[in-house]
Amino acid sequence: MSALRLVPESLTADGFAGYGDVIEARGRPDLIINAGRCGRYHDLARLDFGDGRPGLSVFDAQEVVLPHRVDLVERHPMGSQAFLPLGGAAVMLIVVAGDAGGVPSGLRAFVSAPGQGVNLQRGIWHGVLTPLGGDGQFAVIDRVGAGDNLEEYRLDPSAVVVPP
Amino acid sequence: MSALRLVPESLTADGFAGYGDVIEARGRPDLIINAGRCGRYHDLARLDFGDGRPGLSVFDAQEVVLPHRVDLVERHPMGSQAFLPLGGAAVMLIVVAGDAGGVPSGLRAFVSAPGQGVNLQRGIWHGVLTPLGGDGQFAVIDRVGAGDNLEEYRLDPSAVVVPP
Repeated sequence: MSALRLVPESLTADGFAGYGDVIEARGRPDLIINAGRCGRYHDLARLDFGDGRPGLSVFDAQEVVLPHRVDLVERHPMGSQAFLPLGGAAVMLIVVAGDAGGVPSGLRAFVSAPGQGVNLQRGIWHGVLTPLGGDGQFAVIDRVGAGDNLEEYRLDPSAVVVPP
Repeated sequence: MSALRLVPESLTADGFAGYGDVIEARGRPDLIINAGRCGRYHDLARLDFGDGRPGLSVFDAQEVVLPHRVDLVERHPMGSQAFLPLGGAAVMLIVVAGDAGGVPSGLRAFVSAPGQGVNLQRGIWHGVLTPLGGDGQFAVIDRVGAGDNLEEYRLDPSAVVVPP
C-alpha cells in the first residue's frame, strides 16, 4: 500500500481544538501587569496529570526535513503533554490523529509558527517531536508518576508529510 | 540614598540554586527517545503549586534596556513560577533576592542565555519579567487557585542593573 500523503496546515487554535491547545499570545491579554509593561494571557492549556504530578523537562530533538515519513504515532493515556520551543528551531511539525476503537484515524499535520507551543490532551495520538529548520530544544510539561503512560501504534500504510 | 549598583551574572544552575531551577538541556540527557533522535532531560524543576493547580500562561512583555532601575520586587507565597522564552526576545534579566524577616536582602541579577528558562521557587523575591534585546513572549507555569499569591516590596534605595 502506498503511503498516505499529508499536507501540513498552519497551526491555529480552532484547527487544533480537537487535539489540544495552542499556547501563544493571541488577541487581547486577559490582564495587564507590571505597570502596563506586560500582558498576561492566562491559563491557556487544559493541563491534566491524572494521579501523577506535573514535570518540566527539556527535549533536545534532531531536525526533520520535509518530505518526512511518519510510521509511528503514540499517545499518553494518563496525562496531557505540552511542547514549547525553548531554543534552536522555533517551529515544529505536529502530526495528530483521531481514534477509532484504539486505532489512529484521520491523520493531520500542522506546522507551528514562531512563538507558538502546543498542549496535547490526554490520549491524543501524535507523532514524536519533530523540529523544522534546525535541531531544537523544547520545554515539555507532562505527567511524572507510576504506570505505563506510553502507547505506540505502527502506521500501515505510513504517512508522508510533504512541503506545504 | 543612592541606588544599589548590580552587575548581572551569567545564569548557571549552580549560581541560581538558592533561588530556583535553570531549565535547559545541560550535560547528558537522562534518556534517549524517539529512535535515538531526541534526548530527554527529565524533570528539571521543583514545581510546587500548593493547594492550587498548575496553569500555563503566556506573558507578552516589553523589552528593558540596561542600565535598568529596579524599585519593586515581588514574591509568590503559594507556589513556584517558571518562565520559558517562547518567542521574540530569547533572553531575560532576572533579579532575585534572599529574605531577611520579610525584607528582600542581597539582591543579585542574572542574564539568561538563549535556550534557558528558569523556575523560581515558592517565596523567592524577584523582579518582574524583563526581556533583553527586544520584546518577548514567555510561557509561564504558575499556580492557579484561590488566595493572594502576590506580595510586593518597594526597594529603598532602588537598584540599578548595569551592563555586564
